[in-house]
Amino acid sequence: MTVTKREPFLGTTGRREFGGGCLLALVLAVPGGHALGAEEARPRTMNEVLEASKPSDWRQLDPENTLYLQLEAGRVVIELAPDFVPLHAANIRALVRGGYFDGLAIIRSQDNFVVQWGDPDGKRSLGKASATLPPEFTVAWTPALPFTRLPDVDGYAPAAGFSNGFPVGGDPATKQAWLAHCYGMVGAGRSNEVDSGNGAELYVVIGNAPRQLDRNIALVGRVVQGMELLSTLPRGTGPLGFYEKPEQYVPIQAVRLAADVPAAERSRLEVMRTDTPTFEALVESRRNRQDDWYKVPAGHIELCNVPIPVRPQP
Amino acid sequence: MTVTKREPFLGTTGRREFGGGCLLALVLAVPGGHALGAEEARPRTMNEVLEASKPSDWRQLDPENTLYLQLEAGRVVIELAPDFVPLHAANIRALVRGGYFDGLAIIRSQDNFVVQWGDPDGKRSLGKASATLPPEFTVAWTPALPFTRLPDVDGYAPAAGFSNGFPVGGDPATKQAWLAHCYGMVGAGRSNEVDSGNGAELYVVIGNAPRQLDRNIALVGRVVQGMELLSTLPRGTGPLGFYEKPEQYVPIQAVRLAADVPAAERSRLEVMRTDTPTFEALVESRRNRQDDWYKVPAGHIELCNVPIPVRPQP
Repeated sequence: MTVTKREPFLGTTGRREFGGGCLLALVLAVPGGHALGAEEARPRTMNEVLEASKPSDWRQLDPENTLYLQLEAGRVVIELAPDFVPLHAANIRALVRGGYFDGLAIIRSQDNFVVQWGDPDGKRSLGKASATLPPEFTVAWTPALPFTRLPDVDGYAPAAGFSNGFPVGGDPATKQAWLAHCYGMVGAGRSNEVDSGNGAELYVVIGNAPRQLDRNIALVGRVVQGMELLSTLPRGTGPLGFYEKPEQYVPIQAVRLAADVPAAERSRLEVMRTDTPTFEALVESRRNRQDDWYKVPAGHIELCNVPIPVRPQP
Repeated sequence: MTVTKREPFLGTTGRREFGGGCLLALVLAVPGGHALGAEEARPRTMNEVLEASKPSDWRQLDPENTLYLQLEAGRVVIELAPDFVPLHAANIRALVRGGYFDGLAIIRSQDNFVVQWGDPDGKRSLGKASATLPPEFTVAWTPALPFTRLPDVDGYAPAAGFSNGFPVGGDPATKQAWLAHCYGMVGAGRSNEVDSGNGAELYVVIGNAPRQLDRNIALVGRVVQGMELLSTLPRGTGPLGFYEKPEQYVPIQAVRLAADVPAAERSRLEVMRTDTPTFEALVESRRNRQDDWYKVPAGHIELCNVPIPVRPQP
C-alpha cells in the first residue's frame, strides 16, 4: 500500500472503520497488562509509528530492480527480489529490455487467486532471455540473508518474517528460506517442469494468501504501487480464470525498468525497511490494535497481514 | 466459489495452473510415505473428491437465510448464519422486508480489505428493525454446535474449523466460538460502541483474511455466488476506500430474501456439508495437493484457504 493523506491505513485515522464513530481519549485495556491512560506509554498505533519514523527507516527502490507495468489505466510498480531470484531477475530484465512484454496482455484474472500476463499466442521470441531457468524456489538461509523473524506461529513455515522488505518463510532444519505468497507478490508462471518458468509469464496474488504455492514456484517480487489496477480487473470466465476471448485481454502498453526511464518520469517511492525497531513497532501496532474500535486484541499476526508500507519520497 | 464446468477448481483440471503443461501419470512422492504409482490408492485430488461426492454430502440453501443482493451487474447470493447471529439475521430480514436496502449503494471498496454498502446519507428509516443489537461476536461453544475441527495450527484461534458451512474459530478454555473473517464473509458494520451494529451497513471481505477482526464485530454470513461482482469494484479513493463522490456509488437495485422471491426466480444452489468424510477428504486434497504441478506438499492448510464448494442443484 502507499502511504498518502488520501489513502490512510485502516482504523488509525480517527475516522470510522465500519460506520460512524470518533476516537476518544479513553482508558485502554492492554492485553496482559494493566489499564493505561492514553497519555501514558501505551503501545502506538500504526499511524503514530509512521509519523515518528525517521528517514533511515525507509529505503529507496533500486531502479535496476524496479519494473513499471504500463496499462491503459495507469502504472503498476513492481520491486524485484534479486536476493532470492538472481537468475529470474536477470532474465526478466533481459525480457523487458528486449521489449518482450510490450503489446502483450493480461490473460487471466481468477477471483481470490491471481492475475497473470504473458503472450497469449506463445509465439513471441524471448530474445536474449533464457527459455528455462533453475527453479530458484528457495535460497540457502545463511547469516548473510537478512531475516527479521516474527515471533508468531506460522502454519506454512517453521519460521516466518521479512527479508529486505519481502515476506519470507524459512526452515532452520533445512537451512532454506523462500519468498511467501502474500497479497501483491509477483511470481513467474511455470508448467509442470520445475525449470519451465522463465519470467515471460508473470502472476500477481490478488486473494487470500495461497501459501501452498510457497517453494513450488519462483516468486520474483512484489507490487508496491498500483495493485488496485490489477485486483479490480474483470474475472475471466474460462477455466482457472483465463479470459476466453482475445477482446477480453487487457493490453500491456509496455514494461520498463525504472533505470531505463528518465529520472523525471520515475515513480519516486520508498519502502519501509523491515530490519528496524520502527518496523518491529509497526508489526506490534497491527498485532494488537490500539485504536478504540478494537475490543479484543488478536495477540497474533499472520505473516501476510503485516503491511510493508510504501510512500512517496519526501 | 461455484462449481461449474466453466469454473473448475484450481490445479485439478488437467489444465495448466501457471502456463502450459499436461498431466502425466507420474510416480508421486507422498510426504512421509513411499512412492506410489498413480494407479494405487493415493489421496484424491479435489476434483476427484467432488466427482465422487454423494447427494447427501450437499445441503440446499434455506430460503429464509438466503439474501439476493441485486446489482446492475448481476445477483450476489449471501447465506446468513443464524446459528451465530440470530438477532442480526432477524434484523437483516426485517430490513430487507421493509425495503431498506433498495436504492441504497455500495459506498466503500478498499483494496485487500472490504467492500461495504449502506445508506450514504444515514437518513433512511430502519422501519421495524432495531437500531442497536447485542454484539453477537461470539457464541457459546456447546456440544450442540456443529464443529468440524481442523488439525492444523491456527494463529488467531486455539481451535479452527467449520460449522454448518462457515469457517469458525473457537476457544476450548472460554467455551466460545465465532465466525472467522475469511474471503467472502459478510459482516455488520458498527461504530466504536459494540452494540452499534444492526445489519443496515454490511461489508464483505475481499482480501487476505483480516482475522484480527474476529470477535470484534458480528459476521452474519457468506457470499456463496457472485463474489466477483463485489471484488472487482473500483477501489474508493477516499480514506479507508470510501467513494468520494456520490456518482461513484454502485447502486443497489434491491435486496431480497430468497423466501420472498418466486421459486422459479431463485438461485438454486447447494453447499457442501462440512461435517462429512467427503469434506474431510476435500480438505486433505487441498492440504497436500496431488496433481503433478505441485512438488512440495504444504503439509498444512490455513482455515481461510479451505474452499467450501457451492454448486447448482443437480
